[in-house]
Amino acid sequence: MSKGVKIATIGGGSSYTPELMEGFINRYEELPISEIWLVDIEDGKEKLEKVGKMAQRMWDASPYDVKVHLTLDRREALKDADFVTTQFRVGLLDARVKDERIPLSHGMVGQETNGAGGIFKAFRTIPVILSIVEDMKELCPNAWLINFTNPAGMVTDAIIRYGEWEKVLGLCNVPVGAMMAESELIGKSQDELVYAFAGINHFHWHRVKDLQGNDVTSEIIDKMYSNDSGIPANIHDIPFFIEQLKQMNMIPCGYHRYYYRTEEMLQYMLEEYNDPNVGTRAQQVKQTEAELFELYKNPDLNYKPEQLAKRGGAHYSDAACETIASIYANKNTHIVVSTKNNGAVPDLAPDDVVEVSAYIGATGARPIAFGSFQSAERGWLQLMKNMELCVEEAAVTGDYGLALQAFTINPLIPSGETAKRVLDELLIAHKKYLPQFAGKIAELEAA
Amino acid sequence: MSKGVKIATIGGGSSYTPELMEGFINRYEELPISEIWLVDIEDGKEKLEKVGKMAQRMWDASPYDVKVHLTLDRREALKDADFVTTQFRVGLLDARVKDERIPLSHGMVGQETNGAGGIFKAFRTIPVILSIVEDMKELCPNAWLINFTNPAGMVTDAIIRYGEWEKVLGLCNVPVGAMMAESELIGKSQDELVYAFAGINHFHWHRVKDLQGNDVTSEIIDKMYSNDSGIPANIHDIPFFIEQLKQMNMIPCGYHRYYYRTEEMLQYMLEEYNDPNVGTRAQQVKQTEAELFELYKNPDLNYKPEQLAKRGGAHYSDAACETIASIYANKNTHIVVSTKNNGAVPDLAPDDVVEVSAYIGATGARPIAFGSFQSAERGWLQLMKNMELCVEEAAVTGDYGLALQAFTINPLIPSGETAKRVLDELLIAHKKYLPQFAGKIAELEAA
Amino acid sequence: MSKGVKIATIGGGSSYTPELMEGFINRYEELPISEIWLVDIEDGKEKLEKVGKMAQRMWDASPYDVKVHLTLDRREALKDADFVTTQFRVGLLDARVKDERIPLSHGMVGQETNGAGGIFKAFRTIPVILSIVEDMKELCPNAWLINFTNPAGMVTDAIIRYGEWEKVLGLCNVPVGAMMAESELIGKSQDELVYAFAGINHFHWHRVKDLQGNDVTSEIIDKMYSNDSGIPANIHDIPFFIEQLKQMNMIPCGYHRYYYRTEEMLQYMLEEYNDPNVGTRAQQVKQTEAELFELYKNPDLNYKPEQLAKRGGAHYSDAACETIASIYANKNTHIVVSTKNNGAVPDLAPDDVVEVSAYIGATGARPIAFGSFQSAERGWLQLMKNMELCVEEAAVTGDYGLALQAFTINPLIPSGETAKRVLDELLIAHKKYLPQFAGKIAELEAA
Amino acid sequence: MSKGVKIATIGGGSSYTPELMEGFINRYEELPISEIWLVDIEDGKEKLEKVGKMAQRMWDASPYDVKVHLTLDRREALKDADFVTTQFRVGLLDARVKDERIPLSHGMVGQETNGAGGIFKAFRTIPVILSIVEDMKELCPNAWLINFTNPAGMVTDAIIRYGEWEKVLGLCNVPVGAMMAESELIGKSQDELVYAFAGINHFHWHRVKDLQGNDVTSEIIDKMYSNDSGIPANIHDIPFFIEQLKQMNMIPCGYHRYYYRTEEMLQYMLEEYNDPNVGTRAQQVKQTEAELFELYKNPDLNYKPEQLAKRGGAHYSDAACETIASIYANKNTHIVVSTKNNGAVPDLAPDDVVEVSAYIGATGARPIAFGSFQSAERGWLQLMKNMELCVEEAAVTGDYGLALQAFTINPLIPSGETAKRVLDELLIAHKKYLPQFAGKIAELEAA
Ligand SMILES: [Mn+2]
Ligand SMILES: [Mn+2]
Ligand SMILES: [Mn+2]
Ligand SMILES: [Mn+2]
Repeated sequence: MSKGVKIATIGGGSSYTPELMEGFINRYEELPISEIWLVDIEDGKEKLEKVGKMAQRMWDASPYDVKVHLTLDRREALKDADFVTTQFRVGLLDARVKDERIPLSHGMVGQETNGAGGIFKAFRTIPVILSIVEDMKELCPNAWLINFTNPAGMVTDAIIRYGEWEKVLGLCNVPVGAMMAESELIGKSQDELVYAFAGINHFHWHRVKDLQGNDVTSEIIDKMYSNDSGIPANIHDIPFFIEQLKQMNMIPCGYHRYYYRTEEMLQYMLEEYNDPNVGTRAQQVKQTEAELFELYKNPDLNYKPEQLAKRGGAHYSDAACETIASIYANKNTHIVVSTKNNGAVPDLAPDDVVEVSAYIGATGARPIAFGSFQSAERGWLQLMKNMELCVEEAAVTGDYGLALQAFTINPLIPSGETAKRVLDELLIAHKKYLPQFAGKIAELEAA
Repeated sequence: MSKGVKIATIGGGSSYTPELMEGFINRYEELPISEIWLVDIEDGKEKLEKVGKMAQRMWDASPYDVKVHLTLDRREALKDADFVTTQFRVGLLDARVKDERIPLSHGMVGQETNGAGGIFKAFRTIPVILSIVEDMKELCPNAWLINFTNPAGMVTDAIIRYGEWEKVLGLCNVPVGAMMAESELIGKSQDELVYAFAGINHFHWHRVKDLQGNDVTSEIIDKMYSNDSGIPANIHDIPFFIEQLKQMNMIPCGYHRYYYRTEEMLQYMLEEYNDPNVGTRAQQVKQTEAELFELYKNPDLNYKPEQLAKRGGAHYSDAACETIASIYANKNTHIVVSTKNNGAVPDLAPDDVVEVSAYIGATGARPIAFGSFQSAERGWLQLMKNMELCVEEAAVTGDYGLALQAFTINPLIPSGETAKRVLDELLIAHKKYLPQFAGKIAELEAA
Repeated sequence: MSKGVKIATIGGGSSYTPELMEGFINRYEELPISEIWLVDIEDGKEKLEKVGKMAQRMWDASPYDVKVHLTLDRREALKDADFVTTQFRVGLLDARVKDERIPLSHGMVGQETNGAGGIFKAFRTIPVILSIVEDMKELCPNAWLINFTNPAGMVTDAIIRYGEWEKVLGLCNVPVGAMMAESELIGKSQDELVYAFAGINHFHWHRVKDLQGNDVTSEIIDKMYSNDSGIPANIHDIPFFIEQLKQMNMIPCGYHRYYYRTEEMLQYMLEEYNDPNVGTRAQQVKQTEAELFELYKNPDLNYKPEQLAKRGGAHYSDAACETIASIYANKNTHIVVSTKNNGAVPDLAPDDVVEVSAYIGATGARPIAFGSFQSAERGWLQLMKNMELCVEEAAVTGDYGLALQAFTINPLIPSGETAKRVLDELLIAHKKYLPQFAGKIAELEAA
Repeated sequence: MSKGVKIATIGGGSSYTPELMEGFINRYEELPISEIWLVDIEDGKEKLEKVGKMAQRMWDASPYDVKVHLTLDRREALKDADFVTTQFRVGLLDARVKDERIPLSHGMVGQETNGAGGIFKAFRTIPVILSIVEDMKELCPNAWLINFTNPAGMVTDAIIRYGEWEKVLGLCNVPVGAMMAESELIGKSQDELVYAFAGINHFHWHRVKDLQGNDVTSEIIDKMYSNDSGIPANIHDIPFFIEQLKQMNMIPCGYHRYYYRTEEMLQYMLEEYNDPNVGTRAQQVKQTEAELFELYKNPDLNYKPEQLAKRGGAHYSDAACETIASIYANKNTHIVVSTKNNGAVPDLAPDDVVEVSAYIGATGARPIAFGSFQSAERGWLQLMKNMELCVEEAAVTGDYGLALQAFTINPLIPSGETAKRVLDELLIAHKKYLPQFAGKIAELEAA
């Protein structure tokens, strides 16, 4: 990397790109980037142009001489890249709208990374990420793949398990947000707390200690019940039962609401779904995105606009930039990442991808051994990880029986006839992006 | 046992007792019983009298000289017993009615051994079984405890884990029924098939081979879809999705319907619940039981009446008698029992109680190592076993947070405010039988 | 198998063959054999002729019409076989002499299945067995492979792991002998005892209970110290330390002497090695074999001669015949076999081959879950199994570093320069049978 | 700790104390110590006086006002301590001489932490450390216990397992030395390399990567064979077989020589043992210590004398001071420590103590998940850890059978009559320090 670092961003036309740029600009001194390649597909070309120009303006306004290349040729972008980041969305927000609205139309949770929607996002995304990995093996075999693409846990697991590519880290902003909110809650800086996260993406728990080694998890829980927080913007704010948190003496991530308070979460989502003035999350995001791209068109805008924070993914790109800088500069930063277990979570297999506290440095993630969970958390976690494995295998093989198994085991999908109907409806709705299921889809359409 | 075998049956006033007697009479030549002690509590005295006399009549009609003792003094019955069988029901059928109707009144599955009802049955039963074990340590330390009491898996696990009593086997008639039905389905005798069961009580799967070593599971599955069967009388007859069974190449037990077809099972149960002419299962059983005890009053009846088969627990007692005879006569019979895992199901801990194919002989159960499950089954099983562990610990400690954790993780209880309300309502409803939760119940009543 | 069972025996020219024939003749009613194929290689042709004729005479003297075919064409023998038994010895007894004498010449244990000799027997045998398995996949894909070939544990493990052939059982006469001797020792019949064996081939332990379920292991241990027994003829009779056996409350197999009493075993072997009138075991066996083949030449001999018992492998063939009959007739006999763990020994991986108590029936072995060992046995067992895995991998890959690792970890080979010299000397000595190590051997010879 | 940090050092009369003082003085700015308590027993009083005064002189020569208290009253020293370090030696060097010479007199490895000597050091030390832990629970329940006392792995494991004290870290200078030597070997600074250690104390391996993420283990191995290094002063310098290291692609710790090159190590030790001018290591150390204490008597000496480096434990105290400072100042330093596994080494149980790369900060050690080993290393490690567990249990219970099991499984003790004789001789020789074995010792003496 003597000539400077080359970054390739797949899905570069995303509205998040300015945040990524800001993160890189802020870290330029420790991460001397020479070129950034934003790649997108034909359907994203217009957005790529807009946000790409905006990105270049941001760099031009900085003290650093960095060229932002825009391309639809993924292979050109990957060639000799040092870091590849992925933030693409197969089927764009329109697909997400279907992931949300089809399940909700049958009275089930419809969500981007959870329930039926999350399973279909995996079905669409895993084949694409595996083809990217194939390109990387050829074009940039020493690069690190920093995956933001959701469902980040399954995607990262599939990269290692089926893509046989080890240099990958999966990222999420949920832990970042939790650490920010909780430290504030008890009047400490983040540096005054020591966090231990363990679980899988969007399904982890954490404990917190202070610098005297005292467990302050319970103190945070108490504060959360006078002043709830630590929840990402895109999860509705329903508190957990305090008795449950006290029993586990851990703090679940915000997405646990779907599992610990299914009744209320579903009710809330159905209200949004049924309200033509609100709509599901993807519909809200579409609106936000449209506004953002309107802003990006402004040739004078050369900094990240405030409105981007509302997008829900705040700190996502920050986490990614910090991860890249930590690898490049061997910083040993504590970051919560999706990485190969290696025993860190002994309740899961050593070769499962987990999301855990890790120190990130030159060799990637060094996951911290967390130890065994108590029974309830262990049961949940083993269920969810095995559900992921089932989804991944279905995504790779296109086996309908496995897809049905995944639907059945998923706790947010009440099993039965309706579940099967949702599965079939989603298969047909996403037909374009599901070549592996082509046979079954044809059969369903013929019926 | 030179002077003949002494059997003590806790909950001897059960309507099942005649079936047990029939089983013992049929096996007298290999299991030379000298005395049978039927024990019950004050509330069951009347039923004990009726069924006890009936039991004595059955023996009197047999060629064997066996005395049936009736007592309310458990310690007297346990003294020097060789085998202790348990078939008691804490709170009688009235408690079961609450286990069923309270959850259903909130739109949730209300069932004897599954969901909220199953959890509360465990809460009521585990403290009692542990006190029986304490008596056994003192009065019959070499006896085998043959447990029919539901939820048989959790109860058996608690006996070993918390009671530290190893000589116990848990029994269920579900595998018996499945083996009978399936062999018939493909036109074989049971002797022509080799069964491998693994999982936990009311949540296991099995594979079947023929005597040429060929897997015939798939053949049975195919037949099941022209002519459904293998389902105990008390589970509504909703078929599994064939695609799912084909994918797993295993046959789930009938109770899996609650998990694999939750929607339909719930709908069916609600229909029964809402129909004043039907009622929930316990209410139906009460009716059946009343009829049975009416029959038992007949001083001329000295054989098991046909109506008992309708009761739902057919073959239960048969399984128990066969188990006892197999231990006594070292028969090495293949019986599916709840026993300590010891590795038979490597996806669970070696000290968990599992329900597996075992050979039963003089040393108890020799569980057959089944090997690892595929992801979906593994996930389900690990969830359910950890849910059991959580329930058992709550049953022993009376920890409300744990009870809430158990409710939250249980797949048949949609988490949220209503779940908590059901938990609280059941705590109060079963107050008399839940001394371990006395503090919390007082708090709830005060609120 | 309607036309009768076809047996193919690889290494049919072995002196054991008459014992095998006797076993089949005794079981003909339950195992109706129609043809037996004895296969051997060119070097074994003469012995094959002699023992083959003897075998036919034995059948001719029986009431059964069975044809014994002799052939050097393995593929002809395997074609449509129902059971394949393997009792071959790559390099014949001359190779075994080297396995014994070369280590002993450097002051190390030289033994057929243990230490350096056992490792080299595996190196020679595993490639051959894998080629047999390839033939079987083509010629008799439904056959059971009954493996007597030593080191039976590693060979069976390699068949499953590298050959990907699941229908295999490994057999050994050590457990048979132990069960016979111990029951006699405490004045019981074998039917009055229940045995639980677990470990790996030639490195297992067992516990014994009586029909009242009482552990009688300790009673047997006590008797062993007034009247030592349970030890195969080819292991020198040095007692274990009683304090050790009492602590473990298990009985180790005879081969444990090499590990628990290394000093004395080595001393004894060196005495035999250094005595020109005695020689190592292989040399003694050669003598016995010569005498046996002399006997077999007698055209009037049509029954198993008494002298064969001295050969050391008594009951080996009996175990094999009983295993085959148990599979064929679904007998569910308790036999100790090498089979896939599947969790039976939870201290080892589910896919490791272990040697355990199993019930043998139509579907092969149903291993009994044994549970975890205490620390000392667990440590020994994990060491030995991993040593086996290391040896197998070296046998398949021909990796010299792995061979050196195997030598270093093997407890009977004191590590260091001498160990490496023994390794190199054995590589050269067995050059003809070690094509996988050809490169390294050439290098060693050039040096 | 507002009033400054209180350090209590058990075994404060050790010749190492000046190194510890130097470490604390160098880190005073980040670790503001207010008082140091050096404790010793009556037998060590004279040494305590000498080295204690020397320690005070070192602080007096520094810019910092720290009082060094000397006491024979352990409880006074422990009262309200923030950190307790242990560097005591039960039975002093005289006991070590016996640990070395008695086994060597029978031709076996005699070494401080390995073989028979290591086992007896554990037998003597574990009861004492457990009594210290009892005092700590009462007198300084929030203190960290930093254990240097050998065998550090077993002692640390026993503290957690039997003492139920979690705030403990075990330390060793071997990894420190290896990291220093290896970086030098390939011309890098330690900061330019990333180390991953895993195993147990004195029996671990490590891999090394550079800041580009490339594995440089192989490069280091190559260099080691032109210029051997990375071996602590007290291990004789015999190189490993390069083929073995290349196969494992890891670097074993120096103590592995005893296991990988037993022949040569034993030969070398016997030479020293038999040479009246050399003697075993303890005898050499006694000489060094006498010289050191002679130096310490000099009232003008107020800095660590150069001769101390020869003592063999160089960097030991440095590691301890760095560990304490890292906890106090939450430095997240990479240090290799003995700590609870929690899954870091998935081949061992989560509650075993392992020695692994960890980040040390305010909450103690955060062990890095290492992943599974290959077969040979896995086998060795599982053997050695289980041997440790066996030794610990024998140390706590005084069970002679377990002691014999430990002797038998230990790879440096050839099993047999001589091993038993060594065990018995050591029991009698250390009688004064082995109250738990009093009964057996009396029996041995009576015989
Ligand atoms: Mn996320
Ligand atoms: Mn049942
Ligand atoms: Mn054998
Ligand atoms: Mn050390």
